Amino acid sequence: MSKQVTLKMVANKAGVSYQTVSKVINNKATVSPETEERVMDAVRKLGYIPNHTAKSLRLQRTKTIGYSWEPSPPDQTNPILDEFLQSMFRTAEVYGYYLLCFPFHHKEQKQVETYRSLYEAGRVDGFILSRVNYDDPCVNSLLESDVPFIAFGRPADASFFPYIDVDGALGIKMATNHLLNLGHTKIGVLAWPEDSRVGNNRMEGYFSAMNEAGIVVDDDWIRRGEGNFDTGNWLTTNLLELHGAKTPTAIIAMNDLMAIGAMTAIRSKGLEPGRDVAVTGFDDTPTARFLNPPLTTIRQPVIEIGKNLMFRFIKYLETGRYIEPVCELVAPELIIRESTTGKRR
Amino acid sequence: MSKQVTLKMVANKAGVSYQTVSKVINNKATVSPETEERVMDAVRKLGYIPNHTAKSLRLQRTKTIGYSWEPSPPDQTNPILDEFLQSMFRTAEVYGYYLLCFPFHHKEQKQVETYRSLYEAGRVDGFILSRVNYDDPCVNSLLESDVPFIAFGRPADASFFPYIDVDGALGIKMATNHLLNLGHTKIGVLAWPEDSRVGNNRMEGYFSAMNEAGIVVDDDWIRRGEGNFDTGNWLTTNLLELHGAKTPTAIIAMNDLMAIGAMTAIRSKGLEPGRDVAVTGFDDTPTARFLNPPLTTIRQPVIEIGKNLMFRFIKYLETGRYIEPVCELVAPELIIRESTTGKRR
Repeated sequence: MSKQVTLKMVANKAGVSYQTVSKVINNKATVSPETEERVMDAVRKLGYIPNHTAKSLRLQRTKTIGYSWEPSPPDQTNPILDEFLQSMFRTAEVYGYYLLCFPFHHKEQKQVETYRSLYEAGRVDGFILSRVNYDDPCVNSLLESDVPFIAFGRPADASFFPYIDVDGALGIKMATNHLLNLGHTKIGVLAWPEDSRVGNNRMEGYFSAMNEAGIVVDDDWIRRGEGNFDTGNWLTTNLLELHGAKTPTAIIAMNDLMAIGAMTAIRSKGLEPGRDVAVTGFDDTPTARFLNPPLTTIRQPVIEIGKNLMFRFIKYLETGRYIEPVCELVAPELIIRESTTGKRR
Repeated sequence: MSKQVTLKMVANKAGVSYQTVSKVINNKATVSPETEERVMDAVRKLGYIPNHTAKSLRLQRTKTIGYSWEPSPPDQTNPILDEFLQSMFRTAEVYGYYLLCFPFHHKEQKQVETYRSLYEAGRVDGFILSRVNYDDPCVNSLLESDVPFIAFGRPADASFFPYIDVDGALGIKMATNHLLNLGHTKIGVLAWPEDSRVGNNRMEGYFSAMNEAGIVVDDDWIRRGEGNFDTGNWLTTNLLELHGAKTPTAIIAMNDLMAIGAMTAIRSKGLEPGRDVAVTGFDDTPTARFLNPPLTTIRQPVIEIGKNLMFRFIKYLETGRYIEPVCELVAPELIIRESTTGKRR
């Protein structure tokens, strides 16, 4: 493996980024003819063999695909983990593939090395990534080393790789429009920190819906913090303590747990969630329908995503060609319950 | 692999069960000297090599351990899955091992074949079982074929294999004693169906605590059904509709989800959970502390169990010897919250 000419070596020789080399190799037509020629020249001179071809020359595939994910904090349950894992390895088994699970490391370098060594030791044929961050060290390393992968999450920069992602902006836009249709105009948001790519994607839906409704968003309506119960609780308390004319009558949370915190804060103020203040979540966790009141929330088609990620990735490993759609944004679903439709005073 | 003399062949020749052969091989001294001699005679005549020795003769270990589990119903989240998986593969990685995850099959034969083929194809060195049922087809098959495994769950018959299990009886006994100490004597139970080994283990704790307190259990107090919200709800409604002198003042649920159903049923009757009727759960799901009132429940030391299962199994695979304790029952913890300690009228 170590003697193989890598995509990064081609990039260095051609004087371009590895993303550009990847685009040329994969026939993505966003590169100028001059650049393409320079890249192809470097490819020929170095004797570079694109990964899918090199792979098919390998004597034996492991038919094993690596998967790792960040553990939930102790006070939370990952609401989609079981469905997602099951949908992936059920699909994999049909083709004789299995999932190799390995730990998430908070130290970036350790995380990068774990991926690399699993691939180089021939323990896996490639990876499914559980998420993509801004300037993601894993994504960068896998692209540079030309290791096959597909991601649950889209690129945060100009990189090209196959992925499926949930259109979180659309989800939050549906929630915002739902509240606007119910007559709310002062809509607060329990948002995630500004370095959260997924959180920022979702926020676009809020701004877009408010903008289309001609409502000027007050900065005070947007509160940021970690996606847990306590944060949802105190951020909502702050929102409800804004002076009268500014106080939101509806609150959009970036996940169900923050929404549960919001409902508790609303009740602490002597108000009734769903009747006095509307609340929406995101995830449709199994408890969402058992809450009092049941929670309006956004559901992601997790099983479908797991199945398609695995199917497309296996097809790529076996044929060296991506199947369409190579990159896909899937629509989530708005689940309406009494936390928004309870009768108001 | 197929030409190897198996434990089952030894058992047939000696005219004993494979459990008996396993006990002799593993020096478990519950077998008569005559039987032991007969078994050892068959071992010698057939040239049987105990699995750990055969394994160490194999040229290469896969350093991969298989794990499969039954998916949660769509309305539930497996509260321990993430912690349990993470604790297992974090420990595994230290020794260069990884977890191969594969689907659970409801058809017994398919499930048995999946385990067998993964082992025979050399994709795994053995398995960690996620649970053990009465007359468990997987356990029986693995024992017969002499495939290495360790279980989260104890044998339901006279079989011998290494395991760690939670002492569910002790957990429910602690919950029952807690309620007895609060002055309750009429204690209802939301139990699982009678074919649930885990459920029956837990019920022993209830009977034992009630018996020690000198309380005769009324059959009407024990209601059985699946461990979900709806079942917890309607079984509790039935309990609260028992005629006056019989009506329980406290309810023990076999899991948190049934307890949440119970609290909803209590409220539907115009009563307040924790104040008018005490409720306990089992699992300490992350939502338990966010419920209204927060739920008294039983916590299992999941991370510890995952770590120890993996550590002991790897040591066994590497040395051919079990490390002590080979079989272990671990104590769960009672977490007291307001669903039992709310002020009563």
